[in-house]
Amino acid sequence: MQAAVHRLSMRHPGDISELDALIGAGTVRADDIVAVIGKTEGNGGVNDFTRGYFTQSLMALLSRRTGEDAESLAGRIPCVLSGGCEGVLSPHYLVFSRTGEHDAAAHATPALAIGVAMSEPMQPEDIGRAGHIRSVAAAVRRAMQDAQITSPADVHFVQVKCPTVTVAGAQEATARGRTVVSGDTNRAMAFARVAGALGVGQALGELDPDAEALGLAGLSDFGQYSNKASISSGVEIRCNEVIVLGVSRAWTGPLRIACRPMHDALDIGAVYDACSELGLEMRQHQLTAEAQQRVAGVLVKCEPDRRGTVRGHRHTMLDDTDINAQRHIRGAVGGLVAGVLGDGRLFVSGGAEHQGPDGGGLIAVIAEGV
Amino acid sequence: MQAAVHRLSMRHPGDISELDALIGAGTVRADDIVAVIGKTEGNGGVNDFTRGYFTQSLMALLSRRTGEDAESLAGRIPCVLSGGCEGVLSPHYLVFSRTGEHDAAAHATPALAIGVAMSEPMQPEDIGRAGHIRSVAAAVRRAMQDAQITSPADVHFVQVKCPTVTVAGAQEATARGRTVVSGDTNRAMAFARVAGALGVGQALGELDPDAEALGLAGLSDFGQYSNKASISSGVEIRCNEVIVLGVSRAWTGPLRIACRPMHDALDIGAVYDACSELGLEMRQHQLTAEAQQRVAGVLVKCEPDRRGTVRGHRHTMLDDTDINAQRHIRGAVGGLVAGVLGDGRLFVSGGAEHQGPDGGGLIAVIAEGV
Amino acid sequence: MQAAVHRLSMRHPGDISELDALIGAGTVRADDIVAVIGKTEGNGGVNDFTRGYFTQSLMALLSRRTGEDAESLAGRIPCVLSGGCEGVLSPHYLVFSRTGEHDAAAHATPALAIGVAMSEPMQPEDIGRAGHIRSVAAAVRRAMQDAQITSPADVHFVQVKCPTVTVAGAQEATARGRTVVSGDTNRAMAFARVAGALGVGQALGELDPDAEALGLAGLSDFGQYSNKASISSGVEIRCNEVIVLGVSRAWTGPLRIACRPMHDALDIGAVYDACSELGLEMRQHQLTAEAQQRVAGVLVKCEPDRRGTVRGHRHTMLDDTDINAQRHIRGAVGGLVAGVLGDGRLFVSGGAEHQGPDGGGLIAVIAEGV
Amino acid sequence: MQAAVHRLSMRHPGDISELDALIGAGTVRADDIVAVIGKTEGNGGVNDFTRGYFTQSLMALLSRRTGEDAESLAGRIPCVLSGGCEGVLSPHYLVFSRTGEHDAAAHATPALAIGVAMSEPMQPEDIGRAGHIRSVAAAVRRAMQDAQITSPADVHFVQVKCPTVTVAGAQEATARGRTVVSGDTNRAMAFARVAGALGVGQALGELDPDAEALGLAGLSDFGQYSNKASISSGVEIRCNEVIVLGVSRAWTGPLRIACRPMHDALDIGAVYDACSELGLEMRQHQLTAEAQQRVAGVLVKCEPDRRGTVRGHRHTMLDDTDINAQRHIRGAVGGLVAGVLGDGRLFVSGGAEHQGPDGGGLIAVIAEGV
Repeated sequence: MQAAVHRLSMRHPGDISELDALIGAGTVRADDIVAVIGKTEGNGGVNDFTRGYFTQSLMALLSRRTGEDAESLAGRIPCVLSGGCEGVLSPHYLVFSRTGEHDAAAHATPALAIGVAMSEPMQPEDIGRAGHIRSVAAAVRRAMQDAQITSPADVHFVQVKCPTVTVAGAQEATARGRTVVSGDTNRAMAFARVAGALGVGQALGELDPDAEALGLAGLSDFGQYSNKASISSGVEIRCNEVIVLGVSRAWTGPLRIACRPMHDALDIGAVYDACSELGLEMRQHQLTAEAQQRVAGVLVKCEPDRRGTVRGHRHTMLDDTDINAQRHIRGAVGGLVAGVLGDGRLFVSGGAEHQGPDGGGLIAVIAEGV
Repeated sequence: MQAAVHRLSMRHPGDISELDALIGAGTVRADDIVAVIGKTEGNGGVNDFTRGYFTQSLMALLSRRTGEDAESLAGRIPCVLSGGCEGVLSPHYLVFSRTGEHDAAAHATPALAIGVAMSEPMQPEDIGRAGHIRSVAAAVRRAMQDAQITSPADVHFVQVKCPTVTVAGAQEATARGRTVVSGDTNRAMAFARVAGALGVGQALGELDPDAEALGLAGLSDFGQYSNKASISSGVEIRCNEVIVLGVSRAWTGPLRIACRPMHDALDIGAVYDACSELGLEMRQHQLTAEAQQRVAGVLVKCEPDRRGTVRGHRHTMLDDTDINAQRHIRGAVGGLVAGVLGDGRLFVSGGAEHQGPDGGGLIAVIAEGV
Repeated sequence: MQAAVHRLSMRHPGDISELDALIGAGTVRADDIVAVIGKTEGNGGVNDFTRGYFTQSLMALLSRRTGEDAESLAGRIPCVLSGGCEGVLSPHYLVFSRTGEHDAAAHATPALAIGVAMSEPMQPEDIGRAGHIRSVAAAVRRAMQDAQITSPADVHFVQVKCPTVTVAGAQEATARGRTVVSGDTNRAMAFARVAGALGVGQALGELDPDAEALGLAGLSDFGQYSNKASISSGVEIRCNEVIVLGVSRAWTGPLRIACRPMHDALDIGAVYDACSELGLEMRQHQLTAEAQQRVAGVLVKCEPDRRGTVRGHRHTMLDDTDINAQRHIRGAVGGLVAGVLGDGRLFVSGGAEHQGPDGGGLIAVIAEGV
Repeated sequence: MQAAVHRLSMRHPGDISELDALIGAGTVRADDIVAVIGKTEGNGGVNDFTRGYFTQSLMALLSRRTGEDAESLAGRIPCVLSGGCEGVLSPHYLVFSRTGEHDAAAHATPALAIGVAMSEPMQPEDIGRAGHIRSVAAAVRRAMQDAQITSPADVHFVQVKCPTVTVAGAQEATARGRTVVSGDTNRAMAFARVAGALGVGQALGELDPDAEALGLAGLSDFGQYSNKASISSGVEIRCNEVIVLGVSRAWTGPLRIACRPMHDALDIGAVYDACSELGLEMRQHQLTAEAQQRVAGVLVKCEPDRRGTVRGHRHTMLDDTDINAQRHIRGAVGGLVAGVLGDGRLFVSGGAEHQGPDGGGLIAVIAEGV
């Protein structure tokens, strides 16, 4: 098997013309596409409709190109979008595809491996609780199988998109005599992300395997976290959608991946370390033009420090009624990472509870090896 | 003479308690203060009243401490504030003071020199035009004298606060049969900043000495710029307020300054270069804790690239109806610089027309020498 | 002929399920739909993608229901959307359809008549100038014919969607040696709306028939305006799209329309007058529940007073860096009109230059007659 | 005794020049001022510093005019500010003053009566709980005495400014082994407003006198509310500040007050009723110019309906990441009330939990009687 990652730009959130052209030119086969991760230019909040617009456009294109129904495509191809292109961030999307047969014989060098899985549909009352953690963990294990990765050590980054509790879902659960994790939908959404993060940590052996114990740690014990989980949650889905990125000798090709936790919003060293692991060369503390060409995608999670300070100095992100805190932090961390990489095409996503160290997050870089 | 720079935090824009404590403790004499540059947590736009609130609080304190009238203090102490603490930026202010006598004998090592000057009041019809350029240039020369700097090469950073055309000012000029540079107050404000930048460039010999020719270049020929000018403009003042920072053998003490143009919003090399010139040590691409202790202040100008791209990739700053473009760019460049310095207490200001390369800006670092 | 107007709600900007259900139930024939006017929940600015999302969803539905290509449908069915559901405004859309044959014999009572027309494609250099005014005026006359309205007095409301100058369009025109009306795309967009308004006023005999003279009045002589024009402009179209609403004896059915200029943002009398003309009953200064049932649609244009005051008192809309002025005014006028009508499903659109009195706008109500 | 209310405009939040002029002209005696209620042009959120700026400016003026220390003035003169001049709202403030002696003999006609009171300082652990309700109720009773009002029926409007739980306050309480009402400061602030509203309702006999029972109803049983309470809460105060407005025969002069609950954001009838009670004449559904002259002040509370709809139609205020919900509702209700009164100088404040019917609020008008 061989993985390919295409980083494509969009002129607006409904513009999938670059992918259409690649498919038209035969560079990408529509049937080979297994996942899409993208950054659209909305506000990243509840009323960010650029994600739905992009997904509708993407699935219509793939339906046209494959003959498969759009709904069926959406049920098997995870499309994870983060809204908000603050500062120097540039709207773009990564198209993950796989070619070739599963190959029993191991290659000499491990290469980028991609696996996906969808969990069973979640009930509203299970979301954000121990059952949710177990469901995500199981899906991560299936995605590892799909990626032909056997050791958790070979998994470097796991992107999960979780369902969350909607107002309608809460009412329906209540009618059945159940309670939901929180009546506040924003808080429920945070708990859904927590369950995703802890589920990844459980599957990868980073965390205590007891889902009940882990669930109790959610949004309270921030020392419990995964260094490889990137979670988003959305109202539009019922299943947990999982994308596992790692390395495996069952795969070939030039792509590699490196991932580092970021200890806070100023942890520039993590960015350099991830680049360094991939052998990406620097000139004056920035990737050389050649090294930039080798980069296929960059994935970042970050979070405004909930304690109100960064390295002891007060920040104002959490108290700003004009600009949402997640927009603030994406802009700042995006500026930092773009400065090192020399490129604004970064997937920078907020809401990093239990995904990397508290007040920090993580960075993954996918690039061609040397 | 010896310069001192105190970097102080505020809990809110009316909080000058740290300065009050320093004066109370005798660390700073109120009479020695010659300028204040600060970053307040407003939106940085026309309706940002955190600047006025801070200034009122500061002048009330200094009046109480010196016995001098607040209005008189405001007429001789430039107080330049940039609103907007996006992302990791932390609200703070730099208090510049001078101690000791003017000293004819030259010191062995040049040290940080500070000079200030106020121009004569501007008429509305002169703002943003050749007369404005000449007025700023003359004030810069007087501030150089005040700083005992004779060579423009020894000037490293010039902060200017310019008056701008108000609606009332435009009406008054019209009544006298004069026209103003633009009827659009936002555009007039940009022209005022341009005049400031070109005036600095003229005074320092960076640009053509012909103010008329320079004026014509304003907002059109972006190849004409100063690498040392940082300009803001405000409705509340009538004179050009100038702060010159440089080095001189007439001064002593440990403080030094380095300034570099930033070629675009990703020019991380400029940040490292400025630090390197001051001998500030890095560990893992970030200032060491010791080096951070030596930093007294950081001043940055930046601008959302008006061509709509950064390094060839589309940015969305100029088309965002929700977040002002200047807030976007301050957050991004602030994140980058904070990552290198390990500190969010940065004066990062937008509106960098003709202040550094087009689409970029500049960075100045003040620190104790080794 | 008989006109129908269905007012439908959406749960999000891609939700056209209510229309789908009406078509499925046979209440509306997809082939009878001639125009759609809607209010989506974006920010109403350049980066409001809810309009594109809705249009894509609508055209996909109509294509599925009619078998006609989506592009072809977009070329003949004007879909005019205003983004921004501030305050009590509720996301909704009006579907205009026509049934029955053209009928030579005149009915006893004039009824709501609907006509549409598309102009020829505009060149960038013509947009916002005299040629644009002429083009809109000609399209309005064709739409009147389409509506079987002969007298301008019988036209009550004209909705126009104009193309505007894009960055690419300006470059293309420049390459051909032409200039565009303004290099500032926001200003060019305002000029496009002006041309639309003046074109309507010219076609309806409200204004001087000399398009050159009218063009010179644009954005300067605000005494020149139409009391029946509602204009939007968008980057995605090349032609002027025109919807004429009026009354005609060639039409039958219960629907009527009334339109009034609003003299400023507090002109509540205009709202009551429009309702009164249609015989809509009030209780305690608000439409009775019965009268509310008779209302089929409400269309409002408004504008933040560019002189900075409303009835002599300062407003802050034009100086707010956090909230766009158009969002402010839509929220305020929407609140006022909703209070009289007892319903938040109002099309309230900003950018009312030369559309109604300066600082005001206009209101049209469509309702079943008594 | 005679009450006076002066409605003054400000050019910016630090501008108290109109009051200064009135004092200078002898129209108002600084010593007679007992309360100030104002609308400043910030965002009305946690980071709205226009309130502090105005208060600092006001107290500095009164200190200069009375010789009394600014801190002492702030301790006895309630200054209640609501930030946010959305839409047509105009920045202004109401200065309440009292002249003449307490007069045993009753006047023939009851006139506007004003009383103020400050509670004892609150402990963090008591805020938003039964003790807080009792404290506010007691202060309201003292303010009634101060206003010489004996019957709760003669109280028409009670403005309360409550302290809230700060992060520091919560830590201090925890250190003493106490808990606070909520660790979420926004939620604690809501509970503080609830306590204020329920305390007013208790003092006026609108609600169950059992503070414990009332406390349990907070933010859950929205059927428990006061029709006369307007509450704000702020981090900068320790005591509950209470202003009671009503009528009393111990007072004389032309001023009267009327107050009505608003049942939802479209309850325009309440506005007309309040005006009608005061004999204010309408022409075309708006106050006549003469009637407008008689109005001295208008006070409104409102709230975005937490159920997500207004009169059955979806609103988008609660899901908007770009504009805070309170800004939305103030703009809409402000537009409606301004349309009836013909004037944008309205105190419109959000956060109306238990202040008027759920999803609505209340309106009070102060005007000269006929």
